[in-house]
Amino acid sequence: MKLEHVGIAVSHLGMSNELFARLLGRENYKTEKVDSEHVITSFFKSGATKIELLESNDEDSAIAKFIKKKGEGVHHLAFNVEDIHVEMKRLSDLGFELLNTEPKKGADNKLICFLHPKSTNGVLIELCQDLKN
Amino acid sequence: MKLEHVGIAVSHLGMSNELFARLLGRENYKTEKVDSEHVITSFFKSGATKIELLESNDEDSAIAKFIKKKGEGVHHLAFNVEDIHVEMKRLSDLGFELLNTEPKKGADNKLICFLHPKSTNGVLIELCQDLKN
Repeated sequence: MKLEHVGIAVSHLGMSNELFARLLGRENYKTEKVDSEHVITSFFKSGATKIELLESNDEDSAIAKFIKKKGEGVHHLAFNVEDIHVEMKRLSDLGFELLNTEPKKGADNKLICFLHPKSTNGVLIELCQDLKN
Repeated sequence: MKLEHVGIAVSHLGMSNELFARLLGRENYKTEKVDSEHVITSFFKSGATKIELLESNDEDSAIAKFIKKKGEGVHHLAFNVEDIHVEMKRLSDLGFELLNTEPKKGADNKLICFLHPKSTNGVLIELCQDLKN
């Protein structure tokens, strides 16, 4: 499993895009609305990994609730897997708690599944598999 | 700036080593005590990036305080830089708040400097530069 991106919850995507562009010394390369998660995302390349900024567009979204509870900051770590169904079964069999029973469509043309942070040291883990175009 | 590692604060390094070995499907490759930070660290490879688990060995350490306040979870994102002095000046000039005025010796044979999360969307950022052996 390879770290694919780090997801960061932000309140104001425009301001955070500027902040991370200054920090990383490069502009974001993509913005994408993800209806299933009620977020607008923005991606920055950082070596072989990506930084994904997430702004909620619905006050009931997971990101809105996260910010309300904990403030802005790192929301999840996403790991690339070859076959998300195989990996979901492997991790479930090992006692990790999956937050969805079937993969769902995430940003960046991927199938995704989250693991409950209670079973992963407080870290929300996303599994993601590239969809063939 | 390239994402070098993700630092995760944990309470029990032994248990978390086992947990992340199951999750990532591979064992950690190194354990290191870092006196300057009052932590014991454990490293896992994950693609071109690393996962660093951090257990405090001093109740006054930054990691102990972090866990007391927020619980276990992602503690910092570390970015590799060529010249840490140049990068510290660049970011300071841009208004980012540095947590140390001079780089200090971190884990994994690196010079490190932290940026205050208040200036970076709630994300504790570490700059790190490889030391020549």
